[in-house]
Amino acid sequence: MSELLQAFWEYERALMANDLVALDALFAPGADTVRGDAAGILIGHDAISDFRKGRGGAGKREILHVEVRELGDDAALVIAVTAPLTGGRGQQTQLWQRIDSTWLVAAAHVSLPAPAVNPTVWRIVGTPLVAGIESGLLSGETVAVKDLFDIEGLPVGAGIPAYLAESAPATGTAPAVAALLAAGADITGIARTDEFAYSIAGRNSHYGTPPNVAVPGGVPGGSSSGPASAVALGQASIGLGTDTAGSIRVPASYQGLWGLRTTHGAVSADRLLPLAPTFDAVGWLTRTARELRGAAEATLDPARQVAVAPEFVVAPGLTAHAEPDVRAAFDAFRHFDEADVDEVDFGDIDELFLTFRTVQAAEAWRTHGEWITAHPGALADDVAARFEFASTITSRQEAEGRVALAAARIRIAEVLGDRVLLVPSASSIAPSIFADADLIERTRQGTLRLTCIAGLSGRPALSVPLLAVPQPGSPLPAPVGLCLVGPRFGDLALIDLAEQLQRE
Amino acid sequence: MSELLQAFWEYERALMANDLVALDALFAPGADTVRGDAAGILIGHDAISDFRKGRGGAGKREILHVEVRELGDDAALVIAVTAPLTGGRGQQTQLWQRIDSTWLVAAAHVSLPAPAVNPTVWRIVGTPLVAGIESGLLSGETVAVKDLFDIEGLPVGAGIPAYLAESAPATGTAPAVAALLAAGADITGIARTDEFAYSIAGRNSHYGTPPNVAVPGGVPGGSSSGPASAVALGQASIGLGTDTAGSIRVPASYQGLWGLRTTHGAVSADRLLPLAPTFDAVGWLTRTARELRGAAEATLDPARQVAVAPEFVVAPGLTAHAEPDVRAAFDAFRHFDEADVDEVDFGDIDELFLTFRTVQAAEAWRTHGEWITAHPGALADDVAARFEFASTITSRQEAEGRVALAAARIRIAEVLGDRVLLVPSASSIAPSIFADADLIERTRQGTLRLTCIAGLSGRPALSVPLLAVPQPGSPLPAPVGLCLVGPRFGDLALIDLAEQLQRE
Repeated sequence: MSELLQAFWEYERALMANDLVALDALFAPGADTVRGDAAGILIGHDAISDFRKGRGGAGKREILHVEVRELGDDAALVIAVTAPLTGGRGQQTQLWQRIDSTWLVAAAHVSLPAPAVNPTVWRIVGTPLVAGIESGLLSGETVAVKDLFDIEGLPVGAGIPAYLAESAPATGTAPAVAALLAAGADITGIARTDEFAYSIAGRNSHYGTPPNVAVPGGVPGGSSSGPASAVALGQASIGLGTDTAGSIRVPASYQGLWGLRTTHGAVSADRLLPLAPTFDAVGWLTRTARELRGAAEATLDPARQVAVAPEFVVAPGLTAHAEPDVRAAFDAFRHFDEADVDEVDFGDIDELFLTFRTVQAAEAWRTHGEWITAHPGALADDVAARFEFASTITSRQEAEGRVALAAARIRIAEVLGDRVLLVPSASSIAPSIFADADLIERTRQGTLRLTCIAGLSGRPALSVPLLAVPQPGSPLPAPVGLCLVGPRFGDLALIDLAEQLQRE
Repeated sequence: MSELLQAFWEYERALMANDLVALDALFAPGADTVRGDAAGILIGHDAISDFRKGRGGAGKREILHVEVRELGDDAALVIAVTAPLTGGRGQQTQLWQRIDSTWLVAAAHVSLPAPAVNPTVWRIVGTPLVAGIESGLLSGETVAVKDLFDIEGLPVGAGIPAYLAESAPATGTAPAVAALLAAGADITGIARTDEFAYSIAGRNSHYGTPPNVAVPGGVPGGSSSGPASAVALGQASIGLGTDTAGSIRVPASYQGLWGLRTTHGAVSADRLLPLAPTFDAVGWLTRTARELRGAAEATLDPARQVAVAPEFVVAPGLTAHAEPDVRAAFDAFRHFDEADVDEVDFGDIDELFLTFRTVQAAEAWRTHGEWITAHPGALADDVAARFEFASTITSRQEAEGRVALAAARIRIAEVLGDRVLLVPSASSIAPSIFADADLIERTRQGTLRLTCIAGLSGRPALSVPLLAVPQPGSPLPAPVGLCLVGPRFGDLALIDLAEQLQRE
């Protein structure tokens, strides 16, 4: 007992000192050691060690009380009530085991007090922030609005403190927001976006990286990162986002959500801060098809929607840009065995992507170049580098890009017709927030190739959480989206088709 | 192993069905069984059973994954990853033990995903909601503002949805808020109050009861309930509140916080929704003396502050209104042994309290009677009954009350002079949210007698978390405040004296 308590207090000392060597030594070696907190559970000594290396130390705390339950000579449960110096109470439950006469932690469950609001996910939250009409199709639903849409009386921040500081309160509410309110949904709050929405990672250098509940330690995906994480966390039921190059599909894929990029032009982009208007599309992230259908029905003009036949195609030359594990999960999806899934070929995917990128960059610089020039240092390095590249696009290059875009649209229309393209929503599972730059860049390049077909063609694209890939250090597989790219104005029909795929 | 898992799944069935008999049977009997969640830890089978009876069922969830660690033949740790149907992930760690050949839960640690914001504590939260000046005395501090103070551009809700719905955005910011912003503090958000601040319990029938981290299952104390809980939870460092009859001192006492009711008139009540202006005083709730001193120095006019000598008195006839356990803790406080603590007598405490209550009620009805008459059903029963009583005060009764008030002030000045009265801040520890009405009313009557001396005299009163009382079902004692009632404008001096008492 006294040896156990000595080990317990040595652990506490090591934790407060962030003594990683001592902490590693006090956790039982091997693949069975478990540690869980609000971010999820990690299994295996090494996964836990890696987490600790990335964390940069635990918050300072006092131990208020300790309960010990001895379980024979070589095991004990130790429960501690903790008092973080920043307030509130926490709890730590540890299973200690005596292994080779040394007491080691074999399992740990850590609870910390919640902040008033998670600042990586939200900018402002109300109860609600804006109430919807009393009774409607979306009554009971709660919306996380990406920080690009006008809400009357509040400024837009676009993920950038310097932009927010100069932003005047909106004089009206964006139609995409108003449609949800008019259907009875409440606006819970304004959620984070990658800076000017020009990223698909979901990191934000100013406000931090929102969590990914499906992949402990993984990036959330962006740029609709805040709405996606809010929905995955259960803090809202509908995330209102935008998707230029994958900004709804990628966070949906990374977090196991439903995510619909609507037909370009089907939802008004009024009072929405643009990135690249030729490609910007509004859409939603939800946990199930039910809320997604509700948001879509509340917003889309039914007269313009079209029926879509269940004719699916796959494009091996496109899918080749996914990582091997994602490709394997995609190929194993049993519907691909069916005879009615044709294979198609878009030709040179790199060329399609470069066409997309050129026009996107030209428009992004036209939209934000003046502000960025006037505010040096306001953006994170990666986003700044992207705009820097955008600033180099010449008029001639843009003109050539628009010619290539018209040709790409014709090519995609010829290849797909009215059929539905199936493709992984992203090239990989959510990379770790500590992944090296090469992995991040490789998966980014792969993902942008997968997503560009919908962007170029203006077709709706629905990411459905139907694929999964094993992930190291977690007992649960990481989600990957199966993306359905359908004919223009087939938004609602895609939801029906996806539900059929889910049931089969 | 199969018997263990059978018991685990039977527990899950019982939890989802809220089968209290089965749940009680599956938890090990006796005083050592432990259950902890974000609200704190409960010890003993019966305390856990009582908690379950009050809870009204756990949220529906799926079990995503189970890890079992066998610990010999008769013990095992079972870790489950849960997926609440409302989103997010949870974790449940249980110690199962085989007792008389039956597997029972001996310890449980439950984590649930946090909501976007706790609606019992907050109405609206930003990151921040309003930023203070860049650098000042209070830089780094975060403020929870009771929902009675104007913040420019936002309506006041006063704890009542019908009032909030009709409330126009404030055209300016209350000086008490502005003083904190001007010292560099950020406003985190607007926090809950009991309806029209006419209660000391901290319950709110519309928004629910904020948690009390110091007393699991206990009421938070009111009416500055939201600011108090926000500070105790670590979601803000300064709670800006008001105290008419104890609305800062009582939540400070119940939650183990520092709470200062300032000298009446020392802090502007402009742009503050009043209750009874003769008694309404502004003040702050904090976790330590440091933040309290900062808020006080940022707000109070130093030219008006006075020095206070360390001359303490106690009033046994007043303290008699505290519950026996609180009285015992108060009497045991070692400073009372010292020769320089004189005993004083205020005479008939009931008479003093009735004088306070009559003038308070008359003013409360004058303040809110018209609105309440126009909005039948807008208030909770207990607050409505209090206003109903207030509506019966006649002009003659009020006039007699004001004469008695003048006499009471003279009496208190004669008794106390420039000395500091020591008294328990509340008559009891925080009652359980399920306590019967008799207990609630008895402790309320006792507390209001203890608090009325400061109210009647306009003296500053500082509640300091220096007393503690054992609480059933918890391994930690419940806090009770030691209240220092000092000479008018001795606010800052009281903080100094309290720190000396704390150190001694």
